[in-house]
Amino acid sequence: MDFHIEARDGAARAGELRLAHGVVQTPVFMPVGTSGTVKGMLPDQVAATGARILLGNTYHLMLRPGAERVAALGGLHNFMRWSGNILTDSGGFQVMSLADRCKITEEGVTFKSHIDGSAHRLTPERAMEIQYLLGSDISMVLDECTSYPVTQTQAADSMRRSMRWAVRCREAFISREGYAAFGIQQGSMFEALRRESSEALTSIGFEGYAIGGLAVGEGQGEMLRVLDFAVDMLPADRPRYLMGVGTPSDLVQAVLRGVDMFDCVIPTRSGRFGRAFVPGGELNLRNACHAEDNRPLQEDSDCPTSHYSRAYLHHLFKAGEMLGPILLSWHNLHYYQSLMRAMRRAILEGRMAAFAEGFRFHDKSR
Amino acid sequence: MDFHIEARDGAARAGELRLAHGVVQTPVFMPVGTSGTVKGMLPDQVAATGARILLGNTYHLMLRPGAERVAALGGLHNFMRWSGNILTDSGGFQVMSLADRCKITEEGVTFKSHIDGSAHRLTPERAMEIQYLLGSDISMVLDECTSYPVTQTQAADSMRRSMRWAVRCREAFISREGYAAFGIQQGSMFEALRRESSEALTSIGFEGYAIGGLAVGEGQGEMLRVLDFAVDMLPADRPRYLMGVGTPSDLVQAVLRGVDMFDCVIPTRSGRFGRAFVPGGELNLRNACHAEDNRPLQEDSDCPTSHYSRAYLHHLFKAGEMLGPILLSWHNLHYYQSLMRAMRRAILEGRMAAFAEGFRFHDKSR
Repeated sequence: MDFHIEARDGAARAGELRLAHGVVQTPVFMPVGTSGTVKGMLPDQVAATGARILLGNTYHLMLRPGAERVAALGGLHNFMRWSGNILTDSGGFQVMSLADRCKITEEGVTFKSHIDGSAHRLTPERAMEIQYLLGSDISMVLDECTSYPVTQTQAADSMRRSMRWAVRCREAFISREGYAAFGIQQGSMFEALRRESSEALTSIGFEGYAIGGLAVGEGQGEMLRVLDFAVDMLPADRPRYLMGVGTPSDLVQAVLRGVDMFDCVIPTRSGRFGRAFVPGGELNLRNACHAEDNRPLQEDSDCPTSHYSRAYLHHLFKAGEMLGPILLSWHNLHYYQSLMRAMRRAILEGRMAAFAEGFRFHDKSR
Repeated sequence: MDFHIEARDGAARAGELRLAHGVVQTPVFMPVGTSGTVKGMLPDQVAATGARILLGNTYHLMLRPGAERVAALGGLHNFMRWSGNILTDSGGFQVMSLADRCKITEEGVTFKSHIDGSAHRLTPERAMEIQYLLGSDISMVLDECTSYPVTQTQAADSMRRSMRWAVRCREAFISREGYAAFGIQQGSMFEALRRESSEALTSIGFEGYAIGGLAVGEGQGEMLRVLDFAVDMLPADRPRYLMGVGTPSDLVQAVLRGVDMFDCVIPTRSGRFGRAFVPGGELNLRNACHAEDNRPLQEDSDCPTSHYSRAYLHHLFKAGEMLGPILLSWHNLHYYQSLMRAMRRAILEGRMAAFAEGFRFHDKSR
């Protein structure tokens, strides 16, 4: 995998990732395609928003339809008919948050499926094998994402085990042209642990580096405090990926601090629940104030969804019609991709600080 | 509204309806857009299947968002962003099947909404007014669809009231160029009543005529027995519409008997439940036999959905992903539209009987 930084603007960077399934411009937001589909969207619609890389969830896919089955069916790209790139997480985070009776040992994790109660085991080696079987362009190391808050001792123990797992993941990863393995920095909110984790990962050597263990309930202020020291600890010439983040405002603040990659369920999940991101704020289309509002969802957008009236979207959500979630998932992904493009332009033109300053994002629903 | 018959082949006809929102080639299948949306589909996708006319449900729309509100928002076409034609039913059938405490008198129907229990009244005049407010290209008269079986006395009483309502509907309908009102033949399975109903409607005079009260549980054999006498009773130079029908096999048999128009929830409802119509039969994609079947849904189809593998569709339904219903609704509507086009060609080429003979539709799921 090739990573080329085209421009720097303060700590922010505009670059290009060259992966097996095409070029990805950074900073980049990766829509989440949990179970082999971005919920409610056709691959062509996802591509039409500008997305060139998706995230797939190893935990979901290993349980259903199963990694070996996906491989037998030609890999995840072929299975879901997505011709762009795919990054998969390692399954660790979701095993620990979704599965039943999850037990962590030095060897790995054992757990029971939340779907049918069947017993499973995930080790660093198996996590990399699954991602290989899926055909992921970017494989993530198995790690433990600490909850918040934890003591420094708990965070240190967990992080050090994750770093030992990272060694095993790197060894298990099969290097191929255009494919990458990313390490994940842990250490909760503790600067010394984040530094220790970064040094461990850097000495192993990965094609890219993620920041894990944030957006777990600490709030934006605390997250940014950690990013202020955590981002710089990672190699400057490699892509930096902030996992599971975030709101539009989170993305702007993290890009400003040197993060290149993001994934989050917020745009699609919000869309399914009737919430739409528009310039200057967020609309809750379920609210009665939209019932007779014939204005388009967004005036100045080139997304095909933007022409539907707020009154119509309100109606679709009140009536429980599938088209509501479909339209708002699409709209929100388009909004996120547009935001990433706008930030990239700002970096290339040396005005990222002004962009962030001018980016007034109101979380209040209207 | 102009109706032009281009070709006859036995009783079957190929024609063209000229309506306010464009030309519709017959025989035609109208997808059902109950509450201002064909469930799970964008208007562009519906149009891409070849559909040029949709059905909207007066009952659903009068309750939510309300006819006056739709009118204030520019009418149903504008509201749902559908540039083709719209036929609306009169609400009668669904009031009687879905609403609570429905009471029929000579004046009309009173009922309580199944959504919020609110009290409503639907008269012949109000049914036509609602359809006018929605902006329907084709308005249907208010009638009572008798259940099955009923006695001849019950069927006669009900039909005669429906015919009195038809007079009031015709008077309430505001004639405009390109817009039409259709009468509905009733009389259950009784030939004498169907004849009496047809004569009543013809003497009132409508732009088109529907056959109501079929596909209510009588089975295909009994339905075809009724069609054998009921279709011919309607004016030969006007479009004939068999309401709420049916399976692919029903459509072929009814076209063979001179029916021009159809609507049915089968393609979209079946699609939402994992069933796909393909040449020669129906697939239930939920069945385990499809889990590792890498063949495309349909080999020789030009629908964008046909390239997804059966294994992938199986996975989507097992995982409860929205994309499953989306893809199969689209696929099934495409299948229905293709079937109508194939029948039209067969009629134009004088081989409709052979087409029907060769049309082996197996209802068995695989």
